[in-house]
Amino acid sequence: MKPEEFRRHGHAIVDWLADYQERIRDLPVQAGSSPGDVKALLPAMPPQEAEPFEAILADIDRVVLPHLSLWQHPSFFGYFPANALPAGILADFLSTGLGVLGLSWQSSPAVTEVEEVVVDWFRQMAGLSPGWFGVIQDTASTATLVALICARERATGNSFDRGGLQEQAPPLVVYTSASAHSSVEKAALLAGIGRAHVRMIAIDDAFAMQPEALESAIAADLAAGHVPCAVVAAVGGTATTSMDPVAAIAAIARRHGLWLHVDAAMAGSAMILPECRWMWDGIEGADSLVVNAHKWLGVPFDCSLYFVRDEAQLLRVMSTNPSFLQSAVDDRVRNLRDTSIPLGRRFRALKLWFVIREQGVAGLQARLRRDMALAQDLARQVAAAPHWRLVAPVVLQTLCVRFEPPEVPAGRLDDFTRDWAAAVNASGKAYLTPAVVAGAWMVRISIGAHTTEAADVAALWDLVQAVAAKRAMDYAA
Amino acid sequence: MKPEEFRRHGHAIVDWLADYQERIRDLPVQAGSSPGDVKALLPAMPPQEAEPFEAILADIDRVVLPHLSLWQHPSFFGYFPANALPAGILADFLSTGLGVLGLSWQSSPAVTEVEEVVVDWFRQMAGLSPGWFGVIQDTASTATLVALICARERATGNSFDRGGLQEQAPPLVVYTSASAHSSVEKAALLAGIGRAHVRMIAIDDAFAMQPEALESAIAADLAAGHVPCAVVAAVGGTATTSMDPVAAIAAIARRHGLWLHVDAAMAGSAMILPECRWMWDGIEGADSLVVNAHKWLGVPFDCSLYFVRDEAQLLRVMSTNPSFLQSAVDDRVRNLRDTSIPLGRRFRALKLWFVIREQGVAGLQARLRRDMALAQDLARQVAAAPHWRLVAPVVLQTLCVRFEPPEVPAGRLDDFTRDWAAAVNASGKAYLTPAVVAGAWMVRISIGAHTTEAADVAALWDLVQAVAAKRAMDYAA
Repeated sequence: MKPEEFRRHGHAIVDWLADYQERIRDLPVQAGSSPGDVKALLPAMPPQEAEPFEAILADIDRVVLPHLSLWQHPSFFGYFPANALPAGILADFLSTGLGVLGLSWQSSPAVTEVEEVVVDWFRQMAGLSPGWFGVIQDTASTATLVALICARERATGNSFDRGGLQEQAPPLVVYTSASAHSSVEKAALLAGIGRAHVRMIAIDDAFAMQPEALESAIAADLAAGHVPCAVVAAVGGTATTSMDPVAAIAAIARRHGLWLHVDAAMAGSAMILPECRWMWDGIEGADSLVVNAHKWLGVPFDCSLYFVRDEAQLLRVMSTNPSFLQSAVDDRVRNLRDTSIPLGRRFRALKLWFVIREQGVAGLQARLRRDMALAQDLARQVAAAPHWRLVAPVVLQTLCVRFEPPEVPAGRLDDFTRDWAAAVNASGKAYLTPAVVAGAWMVRISIGAHTTEAADVAALWDLVQAVAAKRAMDYAA
Repeated sequence: MKPEEFRRHGHAIVDWLADYQERIRDLPVQAGSSPGDVKALLPAMPPQEAEPFEAILADIDRVVLPHLSLWQHPSFFGYFPANALPAGILADFLSTGLGVLGLSWQSSPAVTEVEEVVVDWFRQMAGLSPGWFGVIQDTASTATLVALICARERATGNSFDRGGLQEQAPPLVVYTSASAHSSVEKAALLAGIGRAHVRMIAIDDAFAMQPEALESAIAADLAAGHVPCAVVAAVGGTATTSMDPVAAIAAIARRHGLWLHVDAAMAGSAMILPECRWMWDGIEGADSLVVNAHKWLGVPFDCSLYFVRDEAQLLRVMSTNPSFLQSAVDDRVRNLRDTSIPLGRRFRALKLWFVIREQGVAGLQARLRRDMALAQDLARQVAAAPHWRLVAPVVLQTLCVRFEPPEVPAGRLDDFTRDWAAAVNASGKAYLTPAVVAGAWMVRISIGAHTTEAADVAALWDLVQAVAAKRAMDYAA
């Protein structure tokens, strides 16, 4: 494709995407696809000869769009806000179009230095001290794995440089809670800790980790001759955005020499609001933390910000220095490959840079405050509605709701809950995610798509009430 | 940013990128930056108020472009080809613009199913049997880590589900060679194996792993009571594109129950050429392999294709199934989150799909053949030039050259080699990467940027000879 063709097709795609943004409100939020629908539209074998670009582009409308669930839709209330702000989309396009890689500082200096500066901007925005060093990772799952591997190495005196974890005895133990994201246990298992040495600490009525229970578990492990290694606290637990008490956990971690990793993947964005920083009070006592700029903040996926107190330990564990990557300036620059599992790095800082500048800190703050206010408004309505219940405190922008009308037998409430959520999703008018807390199914309403306005939340609440009431009739004894 | 503004700024960026493609030949390949140059151009604090998008975009010319090394430049011969074909750039723009995430099949069905189909297209293109299951990972470093963790779990009877690697005794051992990428040892260390249990197997004159040496090392480890766990073979070793003998290694791995992972990150693209498949003869005996579609093939970074024989083992080790990700169709679909470290997935299959279709298999094959022919042509000229030496066979598209003129004392040849390469790079007219093989510095000439034509290679050779001859005078005794 010659530059002139790129120009022509590029303009067509810009128009397609601008149209998509204009009409997204009229598209169904959830794809009505059945398994295999997309595969049935695609040839099983690759094309031998080149196809006209127009034909390929036409397949976006024919094959792709009808089979997407639209995370950017104003009525998307599922999972978490995964905002791709337009300025971030354009920045990412530039990144891909420039086509440079940050293997080392020298391989494209701006890739490294823009990242150093803008990640530090976020540090300041979140009220973190200058004692933190931050880098971009792909996702929080990866950042948590990196954190637990660094914790493992600290606890074993850097056994990677000798016989490895497999020569460790007695066993290391990792602590977290049922409110933590599934990636925490996964990271511990991938790091070689083993499920038998991952402790799920008891949570309180607000789904927050109980520090006394953590203290007891550590004591029990010490008594058993185990080595408490790390604790992962959730600031914004996955299901309910619960808040683990970081200060209390940090004090325990410090006392027993545990690595404290704080998973603020979702709630971390809210730390740009001074009034929210109580949510991670004590954060300066952590060893590492992760905030997903690709969630609520608005940077297109993927862009996780991973901060550590001890940069040297991160580099010690993650660095490689083969001859083909060495340069004459290595002692005067950061080589960010030494901070992550992948060696190659996209120019991801560009989208973080563009989003912060195009919005301004004030603009980002205003949007987050809008979403939290919408959540509180809706929470008041849910609490006031007969037989509707908030099953968790509304701390941030997520509501966890359950409808328990008298006509639905208690034993069928779980089925009913999933059922009405599926009916809402099938309508194409809104998207919700059910989940289990405290052993029962509820439905999460996660507010915060950047296109969502008050009217969209009002429409959702009308829809949810109507659909749930209608479905309830089928459950009447 | 409203859709109309997105449209306007998007058109401006398309034009900027098309212009960039048109004028890239006239830009210096390597940035002439000094450490800190970019940071000095950026405010240390984030902007409180929004900035006009035009001002942000202007900084691409002011702050970014002068400080990039241009991987898409026709005179980029450094590292490896990291081609971002225009069709792939546009596809990735669409992916970002659509803003959907593949957490599960249901979260956007086309994300999963397009990936299933086009990764299988590549399987067919590379002549692999239907016994392989493939998914997209970010990079080969990550894929190799996943492979070694799966190998570790197979060797320990899935210890992740019990006490973890830390309860393993006797220790597992991983085998690779000095020709392997640095990510192999890094992956073994991250997986908890420990440097003391990573064996660097001897290589032959062509820098390929010696199967007899592997066999001996395994025998020694067995005699010592260790557990041989995995061997990683390089198809296209990093420095010289050397080829480990996969069939012989596979036979040894099978006999001793080792997991064989084949790192074909670079050379895997060439497997779409039937005449190159001898390079990984025996590949069907491997347990896993990785090919970086984001290198020579032309898909914009990042897009690594990871194939395994035993899909169930991959899922067993990598899966999580929290309630908020469950759906009613989970038994009828693939949830690709269960194949990777990150939970969230970009719609990366889109760029692979577009590139294969816009080029056609025939188009991709023709470009790779062009590059290999250019490499052979240049190899003949290097071999014929006085005091120039090819220090490794030219198997693919990389030449490893050394200039040893009589006026440079033998003891200074290493310094001289790095020196003339730096001088070439400083000229801005071409970019080369020096590296060490067999204990001595040489310079790699990696041909294969998609914009590189015969004239560019001819100009490089003229430049290299002139610069090296000039620098040699400074070394005359």
